[in-house]
Amino acid sequence: MSSQISCAVSMLNDPHEAAVLIDNAIRECYLKSRPVYISLPTDMVQKKVDGDRLNKPLDLSFPPNEPEKEDYVVEVVLKYLHAARNPVILVDACAIRHRALEETHALIEKSGIPTFVTPMGKGAVNETLSNYGGVYAGDGSNAGVRERVESADLVLSIGAIKSDFNTAGFTYRISQLNTIDFHSYAVKVRYSEYPGVRMNGVLKKVVQKLGQLNIESGPKPNNEIPEAELTSPEPTITQAWFWPCLGQWLQKDDIVITETGTANFGTWETRFPADVTAISQVLWGSIGYATGSCQGAALAAKEKGIKRTILFTGDGSFQLTAQEVSTMIRNKLNPIIFVICNDGYTIERYIHGWQDSYNDVQQWDYKALPFAFGAKKGEVLTYRVSTKKEVEELFLDKEFSSGETQKLRFVELVIPWDDAPKALKSTAESAAKRNAKV
Amino acid sequence: MSSQISCAVSMLNDPHEAAVLIDNAIRECYLKSRPVYISLPTDMVQKKVDGDRLNKPLDLSFPPNEPEKEDYVVEVVLKYLHAARNPVILVDACAIRHRALEETHALIEKSGIPTFVTPMGKGAVNETLSNYGGVYAGDGSNAGVRERVESADLVLSIGAIKSDFNTAGFTYRISQLNTIDFHSYAVKVRYSEYPGVRMNGVLKKVVQKLGQLNIESGPKPNNEIPEAELTSPEPTITQAWFWPCLGQWLQKDDIVITETGTANFGTWETRFPADVTAISQVLWGSIGYATGSCQGAALAAKEKGIKRTILFTGDGSFQLTAQEVSTMIRNKLNPIIFVICNDGYTIERYIHGWQDSYNDVQQWDYKALPFAFGAKKGEVLTYRVSTKKEVEELFLDKEFSSGETQKLRFVELVIPWDDAPKALKSTAESAAKRNAKV
Repeated sequence: MSSQISCAVSMLNDPHEAAVLIDNAIRECYLKSRPVYISLPTDMVQKKVDGDRLNKPLDLSFPPNEPEKEDYVVEVVLKYLHAARNPVILVDACAIRHRALEETHALIEKSGIPTFVTPMGKGAVNETLSNYGGVYAGDGSNAGVRERVESADLVLSIGAIKSDFNTAGFTYRISQLNTIDFHSYAVKVRYSEYPGVRMNGVLKKVVQKLGQLNIESGPKPNNEIPEAELTSPEPTITQAWFWPCLGQWLQKDDIVITETGTANFGTWETRFPADVTAISQVLWGSIGYATGSCQGAALAAKEKGIKRTILFTGDGSFQLTAQEVSTMIRNKLNPIIFVICNDGYTIERYIHGWQDSYNDVQQWDYKALPFAFGAKKGEVLTYRVSTKKEVEELFLDKEFSSGETQKLRFVELVIPWDDAPKALKSTAESAAKRNAKV
Repeated sequence: MSSQISCAVSMLNDPHEAAVLIDNAIRECYLKSRPVYISLPTDMVQKKVDGDRLNKPLDLSFPPNEPEKEDYVVEVVLKYLHAARNPVILVDACAIRHRALEETHALIEKSGIPTFVTPMGKGAVNETLSNYGGVYAGDGSNAGVRERVESADLVLSIGAIKSDFNTAGFTYRISQLNTIDFHSYAVKVRYSEYPGVRMNGVLKKVVQKLGQLNIESGPKPNNEIPEAELTSPEPTITQAWFWPCLGQWLQKDDIVITETGTANFGTWETRFPADVTAISQVLWGSIGYATGSCQGAALAAKEKGIKRTILFTGDGSFQLTAQEVSTMIRNKLNPIIFVICNDGYTIERYIHGWQDSYNDVQQWDYKALPFAFGAKKGEVLTYRVSTKKEVEELFLDKEFSSGETQKLRFVELVIPWDDAPKALKSTAESAAKRNAKV
């Protein structure tokens, strides 16, 4: 079964080949960013193998492209780039996951081309750069972004994953005739495909030979709160208010984990500081992932000296893997956890069953949970905020906000159930439309 | 991937065949007691299909055996049965899961042959019958059972699953020369195989033609507490004391769910009242299963008017799927939940790492959990018992024990971490021995 989804399967049935097979699986996993499968039979666990291999690090470098072929592709790319009047760069998740960020950053910085990210590409790019333009996701794009990207005569698309949520429900309007796709396994220029040409080498040479380009600037994203929100007399937290506000509170080097759903859609409207690591997997829509991911990220952050790991999840998603908070307490980790309490599966409501009970979840006393999970009084700080004022006060609270606070912080963020981030609404509308059509 | 483990795969790509494919998958699932896979594409969800099929119930009867072949097998079985001097019957899980209980009960009752169950066969047999002899599982058998079963000159083995835990670590000592195996897919008499002959028809005819048999009686299991436990001055709960004591408290028609590990091994020493439904899956060892299973069973019990659904799980297992308690509260179910608080993965300790931290779990305040999951005060009854006296008082507590109590009851059952049921110890010893050998 596993072989169907694994790029290497190592069955350790013979101690003489076990070490080679393990090394091979690790190497393939790293180079291809795909799952591998290692079968470790119990009667093999205590066998001795030669330890010599451990003295030599694994070769984890990508095999270089065939030079002539790579040069050919570079020339083609440059031809279109030089001919373009208003090109843009669009960075997506595979630029991160297939390790092409160094080359991508060089291109963005040296070229000055207006650069956008997809939702899953958030965190790939320094959002404080002057040529950073915001999130592009068709109908779910940031203000002004859709117009700029879709009117470009060339889109340099790096590491695209055109999944449902990542494209706001397949609402891209970019012609393949105006696109160059850079992938780990191929480059595609308009309809010409160059299989086996990895993006890294091509991007590197394109940057070296960049030359003179035509640049037409793009929109400037910010974390300003929309005027209507500022003047509204309503004290309750709104999605439109919260996410830009969050952008003002985030700090350089933060790790931000967002669950598929309200949390991830929300951060489309949050402009990150520099060097934020963003983690999400909206591609798979596996809700529950983010809380476990936060435990892993917080553990890694502790080892690496990164100060703040911040989780945003919804109540419905949180209930699936809530016990990872227990693991965080056991490991004495200090992430900041926001559970968005909005009474259930918001995106599902927007797609089907606005007030149906299958979109409700059991009402938990979330703040009580860390203590049921064994935290001693004072070991965990808990908060409940349901007004804008309370959020503002929370963000100003030094103990809460400081990266030096060695306590897990757990926030119930109460937002009305019938509100949702703009991007969520447009994605759900698109899904509902597709459902109605069939 | 799914086709590798499915006995039917229905891809609903065409509305004209969708209904037939769904019916076929349901029928195969029922008849073969194996997984099936139905793929329901979103663009198929709202298609209309002819509803006529719904007027005719699915034919869920097993295809009959070929009569001549079946009669031949029946004669062979009867030949050995009549020649046997001290036969026994051994009932295992597949007698339940492949729906041969009616025929099995007829054989047990009409023949009077001493009858034993395997751990996963518990619940298949009325344990109050005079010819019921207890649990057989090699080294993990009830007192006197191993001697009786292994000295039998004929074992009628019905629905065997010879997995690790179900055989106390592969410690059966039954010769195939003394065995007749009845399965859903074949009958096997000594080494003669009869593929395609289902047990049900064969058992039915064997019962009809039973005739005169030689019967040598077996041990009589009971729920008497071992003498050493009765005279011990220690107030703490011991495993050797608890499980027979539980047998005195259980009632006819109870549903008893036991998690793989301490809980299931414990009930090997519990003699059930009549008509107990026992649920476990030690075959797979998927800890966490039992709590979810309890939620499903309690829901079914409510619909069927069965009064008591009782879960036994360990703290390590419980932590994996604890949120199912939230679902029980949401569905207003009233199971009785025992969480055995013994500080971690007991069977793993016995196999490897007696005091290693990877066998520990985070200490939860379990009793606080139902309320963190949203239960109102008074909606759930919680208890913590750590002495034999407290258990005795709990079992005498009418509100706790009554099937009429419409409240979920949640018990922390505190047992020292370094104690374990006898059967667990012998199973772990056998596993440790196998590990040491390789």
